[in-house]
Amino acid sequence: VHIALHLPRQVPPAVLALLFAAVPPAPAAGPTAPVHPVWSEVAPGVWKATVGTAEDLTLLGAAGAAPALDRLATLPRAPFPFAPGEVEARTLAWKTALRLPLGETEDIYGLGVDFGTVRRNGQVFELHVDHWNRRAPTPGRTHAPVPLYVSSRGFAVLFDTARYLKVSVGHGVRLAAPRKPPVVDRTTRTIRPEDPSAPAVPAPWVSALRSDSIEVLANAPGFAVYVFAGPSPLDALRRYNLFCGGGALPPKWGLGFMTRLPTRATAAEVLADVAEFRRHRLPLDMVGLEPGWMSHAYPCSLEWDATRFPDPRGFLAALEREGLRANLWFNPYVGPPHGALRRRLEPFAGSHLVWNGAVPDFTLPAARALFQEHLRTAVLAPLPAAVGGFKIDEVDGYDRYLWPETATFPSGHHAEQLRQTYGLLVQRLVLDVFRAADRRTFGQVRGTNAGAAPLPFVLYNDNYDFTEYLTAVVNSGFAGVLWSPEVRGSDQPQDMLRRVQAVAFSPLALYNGWASPQRLWSHPQVLDAIRSVLLLRLQLLPYLYHTFAQYRYDGVPVIRPLPLVVGAAAAAAATEAGAPLDATANPYEAPAALKEIRDQYLLGDSLLVAPLAPNESARSVVLPPGRWYDFHTGAFVGEDTTVRVSPPTDRVPLFVRDGALIPRLAGERERAPARDERPVLEVWHYGEKPGSLRLYDDDGETFAHERGERGWTDLAVARAADGTWRGTATPVAGTRPWSYREVRWIFTLPSP
Amino acid sequence: VHIALHLPRQVPPAVLALLFAAVPPAPAAGPTAPVHPVWSEVAPGVWKATVGTAEDLTLLGAAGAAPALDRLATLPRAPFPFAPGEVEARTLAWKTALRLPLGETEDIYGLGVDFGTVRRNGQVFELHVDHWNRRAPTPGRTHAPVPLYVSSRGFAVLFDTARYLKVSVGHGVRLAAPRKPPVVDRTTRTIRPEDPSAPAVPAPWVSALRSDSIEVLANAPGFAVYVFAGPSPLDALRRYNLFCGGGALPPKWGLGFMTRLPTRATAAEVLADVAEFRRHRLPLDMVGLEPGWMSHAYPCSLEWDATRFPDPRGFLAALEREGLRANLWFNPYVGPPHGALRRRLEPFAGSHLVWNGAVPDFTLPAARALFQEHLRTAVLAPLPAAVGGFKIDEVDGYDRYLWPETATFPSGHHAEQLRQTYGLLVQRLVLDVFRAADRRTFGQVRGTNAGAAPLPFVLYNDNYDFTEYLTAVVNSGFAGVLWSPEVRGSDQPQDMLRRVQAVAFSPLALYNGWASPQRLWSHPQVLDAIRSVLLLRLQLLPYLYHTFAQYRYDGVPVIRPLPLVVGAAAAAAATEAGAPLDATANPYEAPAALKEIRDQYLLGDSLLVAPLAPNESARSVVLPPGRWYDFHTGAFVGEDTTVRVSPPTDRVPLFVRDGALIPRLAGERERAPARDERPVLEVWHYGEKPGSLRLYDDDGETFAHERGERGWTDLAVARAADGTWRGTATPVAGTRPWSYREVRWIFTLPSP
Repeated sequence: VHIALHLPRQVPPAVLALLFAAVPPAPAAGPTAPVHPVWSEVAPGVWKATVGTAEDLTLLGAAGAAPALDRLATLPRAPFPFAPGEVEARTLAWKTALRLPLGETEDIYGLGVDFGTVRRNGQVFELHVDHWNRRAPTPGRTHAPVPLYVSSRGFAVLFDTARYLKVSVGHGVRLAAPRKPPVVDRTTRTIRPEDPSAPAVPAPWVSALRSDSIEVLANAPGFAVYVFAGPSPLDALRRYNLFCGGGALPPKWGLGFMTRLPTRATAAEVLADVAEFRRHRLPLDMVGLEPGWMSHAYPCSLEWDATRFPDPRGFLAALEREGLRANLWFNPYVGPPHGALRRRLEPFAGSHLVWNGAVPDFTLPAARALFQEHLRTAVLAPLPAAVGGFKIDEVDGYDRYLWPETATFPSGHHAEQLRQTYGLLVQRLVLDVFRAADRRTFGQVRGTNAGAAPLPFVLYNDNYDFTEYLTAVVNSGFAGVLWSPEVRGSDQPQDMLRRVQAVAFSPLALYNGWASPQRLWSHPQVLDAIRSVLLLRLQLLPYLYHTFAQYRYDGVPVIRPLPLVVGAAAAAAATEAGAPLDATANPYEAPAALKEIRDQYLLGDSLLVAPLAPNESARSVVLPPGRWYDFHTGAFVGEDTTVRVSPPTDRVPLFVRDGALIPRLAGERERAPARDERPVLEVWHYGEKPGSLRLYDDDGETFAHERGERGWTDLAVARAADGTWRGTATPVAGTRPWSYREVRWIFTLPSP
Repeated sequence: VHIALHLPRQVPPAVLALLFAAVPPAPAAGPTAPVHPVWSEVAPGVWKATVGTAEDLTLLGAAGAAPALDRLATLPRAPFPFAPGEVEARTLAWKTALRLPLGETEDIYGLGVDFGTVRRNGQVFELHVDHWNRRAPTPGRTHAPVPLYVSSRGFAVLFDTARYLKVSVGHGVRLAAPRKPPVVDRTTRTIRPEDPSAPAVPAPWVSALRSDSIEVLANAPGFAVYVFAGPSPLDALRRYNLFCGGGALPPKWGLGFMTRLPTRATAAEVLADVAEFRRHRLPLDMVGLEPGWMSHAYPCSLEWDATRFPDPRGFLAALEREGLRANLWFNPYVGPPHGALRRRLEPFAGSHLVWNGAVPDFTLPAARALFQEHLRTAVLAPLPAAVGGFKIDEVDGYDRYLWPETATFPSGHHAEQLRQTYGLLVQRLVLDVFRAADRRTFGQVRGTNAGAAPLPFVLYNDNYDFTEYLTAVVNSGFAGVLWSPEVRGSDQPQDMLRRVQAVAFSPLALYNGWASPQRLWSHPQVLDAIRSVLLLRLQLLPYLYHTFAQYRYDGVPVIRPLPLVVGAAAAAAATEAGAPLDATANPYEAPAALKEIRDQYLLGDSLLVAPLAPNESARSVVLPPGRWYDFHTGAFVGEDTTVRVSPPTDRVPLFVRDGALIPRLAGERERAPARDERPVLEVWHYGEKPGSLRLYDDDGETFAHERGERGWTDLAVARAADGTWRGTATPVAGTRPWSYREVRWIFTLPSP
């Protein structure tokens, strides 16, 4: 409808004023007064407050988070970290603001898997699930923008909203703040006193002033806030992970090696590739099929392709005979329009397509049930046990490919809410399919969010920057998620090797050849070194599995950034001095890149990993407090110091704590142990201190461990009366016996 | 307040379910049905509809836009461009969505001053006032994110909201769309028919599918939409500019040359710099003082500094004797706390400081009045007429420096609204100070928005990429704003020259030496060429001034991108073919950079500007339809073609339409004509067609032209009976006579 209104050429000013009001008078009401949230302790050391009106769809809800209250009760007690009135909430029309105190020396970590920096102070984040992009001027758009921060003061805070969040960490000084930075004249670099006859005092001018607050703005009428007590930052993270239900425990085979095949590979080509792994004596446990396993992709039919995979059962049986599991790629955008799944899902789909595929509204139980039934009947049916998991692609909402934010969904949830939770929702529905069959799964996912700790999926992306990969590994430890770099080949043999070496010490060890003609054996000159590090990965499986069990039952992150290691925070402190003025490159004299530790981390309790970058043959390593030993040689490396190391090409810089016990599989092997296998365990002792470890084990494949079928064995190493090292292994009474037929002790330092 | 709630270690499932609901049942109500806006013609060829509930603070309101209805009535009539029901609005809780149709061959331009691309199709924009940053993955954050789009079908649409907007241009295919892209299997690159026995049809797979809609989502409960009819895209833009009140008409001296001095320069150093301009015979009309003119900066005292400028009146009088105007930098963040202005403004300031400065809530009349009074009494008072304008810095809301979005303001307006309108509000209050004194001003501003056409400020930023500078110049023509690159020196003489050459043909010709030790004369080997192009700029002042008068009274943009030139749109068409797959660099086979014209534009009716980039000695130029001639030599260059040109180093590639008349000042001069001067006019005729021009003139300094004191002279060139060219100048009866004492005719093609 349009109505023609012909105005005279000369309009009286009064009419004009009506049509185009100048800046109008201010609304009568100014901003409302802030309120102080009311906190309730909802689990031991976990407090919750609701600011404004919370919505029905939350991150923890979408993830299906169910607190492991019994495990939470084992953590040390710690007080609520804020003083009364220190936290303020405010409703700004349809948005909700929250202000939390930030101390002058408090360091903030977390706020999602960032690829650029680790310490958060002085930054502003827009937390959106998105492809990570190094070019974003305001960070926070990433595959896991988990709105959880960890304070060096020893607590963590979660903002549980499925809406976009903006978080300022110590940015934005308030007029009313009792503690404000000094007021410096930029021209003269002096503090100029009120009395003009008094002398000006020299002082540095700072472009980004630090405030006394963390400020949060959510596009939501309200949300729940959770506070996780410490006493240490690591305890706070453990509390968060356990509150989500505890971390994911993959099947043992999930900690082996995965390869992904070219997207158009046929069944025969896949099996030929597997034979090449055998021929080169390279470990392999999982074979990832890219979109070509489907009859239609982008959009996805989620049905086996009759041309490339004419006999899915025969193909899967062949993998099974090799002791391998298939991992199947999909994105949840369903098509073509005449496809069986698409036709059934359309009534439960959003208003917009993604790559011509219907977008199921997975907040609807009916949509989840349809999709799960399809996975069972059309995808897994040929040989269910041979499919170990899925790679869930493109659930990270990049504007150019995903549904626009104007899209509507039949549940009434908004496009923004679906973007923030879609990865969680798909992971959960896939997990439930496997859980119902009592088979564990370990897969990949491209987008996730808070509450994800129990979801057995590892994040990935299209990035290939080595430094940024490691930074993401570090940050994953603050976010309750798993993240792994991947190897996609390289023209440079040494680059290929370095990437494999880094991948070998991440949650999922993966070669992704989906669009590369290269394979792991493309560079003969580094093949032995590649084999060596992957065999080591397989040998370390008991240590890795134990580390994941700590994640599952104690909430301890698999990856531990240095600030989580007591006493190491100081070594990780960043510098903030302004860099020189440049009218174009740095007109605000912003500080240059911060100095912080982004390229090393602890994997589990005792192993410090410091990979060499491509084209690097030496590097510096900051040793956490205590005495550290070389993993490979057992030699003493240093104590409370930073060392420079230049190992042989085939060795990753790895360091072990004094007294640590590293449980390993004996011998060389190319597959993780099967459920009924009884391998030989080696326990390596490092350093001069006695050592002990309560080693976890279970069947490695089913959910029986959650039904009590799990066990621990106390390993101990001490000097005997004659001064020689002795090891003992004592099963913990009343728990499931371990699966090893024998234990061998290796003492890396000779007995005196 | 916090309440300790101690839970037992084992919690019954029912209690858990209450505490942490899994994905909840869907809300009862699905999305609401869309509504069709009701359009009213509020001015000739301008339709308005309000979707949802509009807010009190709008862009046009903040800009003080007052439609020039009498001028709008002179435009050709054109119909409302949309069919009934084609435009849909929808309320999504507290957001407002709008969908407009997009034709398969329709090209979209505008949506603000972007530095990367010109054509908008297939892109998604987040329109925020911000520092522009080439690294943003989703574009739209820029100094002028004007939410106005221009269609190649010949209309324009404005979304008048002071909230953030997200705009998808042809992205996001709807499930219900009648026209959808073909469904192609990516693996086989075929369309696979429903009948599996039918042959698959080869077809290209496209990563970003094109939709039939432009979709808009505003963070607002509603907003007004304006549709500006054509019939041509240029007419639509003219209608928009006139609806805002008509474009800015600078004083004549504003079209001369401006230099900006180092930030710590003293009065004596400024005057010494002016003397250097004289000594090198370089044009100069405006002298810009950076923060050092103030007693305190970052935050700003807005008071003359007693050390560097002990005698402001004497200093300004010295400039005035040289025929120069001062331009004074400020940002509106007021301090130090004990300063006079700060103390008075604090009750009207926002909750957060910027660089320790109070942020006046300029939507409050009291805050505007206080600031204006301060400008008059503390800044301009020493010698008002010698200050020609201001440089308004940092009104573009970069997250790291500006008030956070949690900030509150005493008017009750939100931080987001203030960010989107702050540049408009400050420009307007500064303009009003000059208007009240009946002196025109021409200044600089770093952030603006819709409605800005009448505001006499030119945008700038810290960028220094030559190509991006030119792209921004091109895009400014679609946005109703003025944008100029600037020269900040270069170590490379030729780079310096190329930058000066580009700046000479932009709205404001500026050397910005605020943080550079270099001056225009730092490279003797290019000084003559620099002088030559700046003298040409001054000579072209009658043409430039006439062009601005067209902007003022006819709404015609000063800068005209090629798509606005009839028939040239096809030449500017972009290609969209996908680029090769690369697992890391291009996993979605997205198209490579679009081929489009981003480095040439028309300045006024007749002059095609195609600057050479640094390190370029030749370039291609797409000639718009018709015959074009070399500006410098008058020689025929080409017709309906693309030419390659390699002019001498000191000449900018400039081309003139057949039959065009270019009015110039005779002789060489270093200052724009003063109000009482009567210079000699040269009229240059190009090509073989007769020419005519109704040349505008007025006093060049006051607002008398708005009170009727303006005039036109009809210039005509035609062949006499003997075949020789003859020119005539005839004043238009009843209008103000021009200021030239004599007119000389120059015919660039020899008479036959």
